[in-house]
Amino acid sequence: MDKISKGDILSYPRLYRANLINSLSGYKSANLIGTLSPNGTENLGTFSSVIHLGSDPALLGFILRPPTVPRNTYENLKRSKYYTINHIAKDFLAEAHHCSAKYAEDISEFERTGLTPLYRNDWPAPFVAESPVQLMLKFKEEVPIKVNNTIMIIGEVEAIYLQDGLLQDDGFVNLQKGEVACINGLDAYCLPNQEKRFAYTRPFEMVKEL
Amino acid sequence: MDKISKGDILSYPRLYRANLINSLSGYKSANLIGTLSPNGTENLGTFSSVIHLGSDPALLGFILRPPTVPRNTYENLKRSKYYTINHIAKDFLAEAHHCSAKYAEDISEFERTGLTPLYRNDWPAPFVAESPVQLMLKFKEEVPIKVNNTIMIIGEVEAIYLQDGLLQDDGFVNLQKGEVACINGLDAYCLPNQEKRFAYTRPFEMVKEL
Repeated sequence: MDKISKGDILSYPRLYRANLINSLSGYKSANLIGTLSPNGTENLGTFSSVIHLGSDPALLGFILRPPTVPRNTYENLKRSKYYTINHIAKDFLAEAHHCSAKYAEDISEFERTGLTPLYRNDWPAPFVAESPVQLMLKFKEEVPIKVNNTIMIIGEVEAIYLQDGLLQDDGFVNLQKGEVACINGLDAYCLPNQEKRFAYTRPFEMVKEL
Repeated sequence: MDKISKGDILSYPRLYRANLINSLSGYKSANLIGTLSPNGTENLGTFSSVIHLGSDPALLGFILRPPTVPRNTYENLKRSKYYTINHIAKDFLAEAHHCSAKYAEDISEFERTGLTPLYRNDWPAPFVAESPVQLMLKFKEEVPIKVNNTIMIIGEVEAIYLQDGLLQDDGFVNLQKGEVACINGLDAYCLPNQEKRFAYTRPFEMVKEL
């Protein structure tokens, strides 16, 4: 096996270290977060840190980097209280990656990429029409992470829109059918194939496939 | 599209809601976390919430559920300060899922599943020998998440062990070559194929493939 020590990590050039450490969590979720600025500019940002926090209430979190650069997503959702999470899928990988570029606040990533903003009800945040899994979130809590000045933003799921055919009889959403992507490291978009689904397992029982 | 409202979510039976909401973040990382109890019992738990928090210092986080049930991983790492994160791969999916069963503190999931504990240096936590990506973490911070009483545990990467052939010239770790899995929902283990890798993108530039 290749062995890398803490001293090695500290000695690496910045981009080498970023490529390496960003690969260590395993595969990451791949999402576009949509918000609206007070003057009506639509913002779309690429995020690979969205995680499940709980089902009842239905809560998702994501990580924001330290406030040393403008963070349009953060400023917008703190004001409007609403944001969308849209799964990135095979048909728009390049457009989704484009949304990781640091555009100024008055530039809409929808316009730059050609992705389509979609509004529902009176919610003040645009969905991405091309996405097979579209969620409306309401901001609930901001958790400061002291050790490196990042922030976790937590929101509650207000509504779910799923491409036809993804929702199974038991509530499971088949992401593979939607060609939803995940991310390896900083920049490698991958398409998973379901290998095995297992039943809930109790101590001293055999693991059973569903 | 299928539309699910917040009222629908609240009305669902518990397992249906868990299947649904656990699918909404997108694909999750798939890891086994290894710890050692004060009396020497080895513990291994299945986690799908490990995320990247930063590269300098190299920090990973993961989520623990509310303290209403015994949490061997938490108790052990708070005492010993060390834990391992081991990527789940194709060859041991059933064994990895087995580690999600709620075994008592004096039962070793290594013994129950046949996975192999591996010790290096004097670190008081076992790696999973079968895993292609094995990490030693040192506990740094515990972040309470008030909205649902979960906890984020943050650790710094002390050492990295990678199966031969995964580490690329630019620091990127090719998880597909290690047949590393990710998780859809609560229980579907998936194997991703790399579709596209993109270069760092600046405003008003075309997105380029690497």
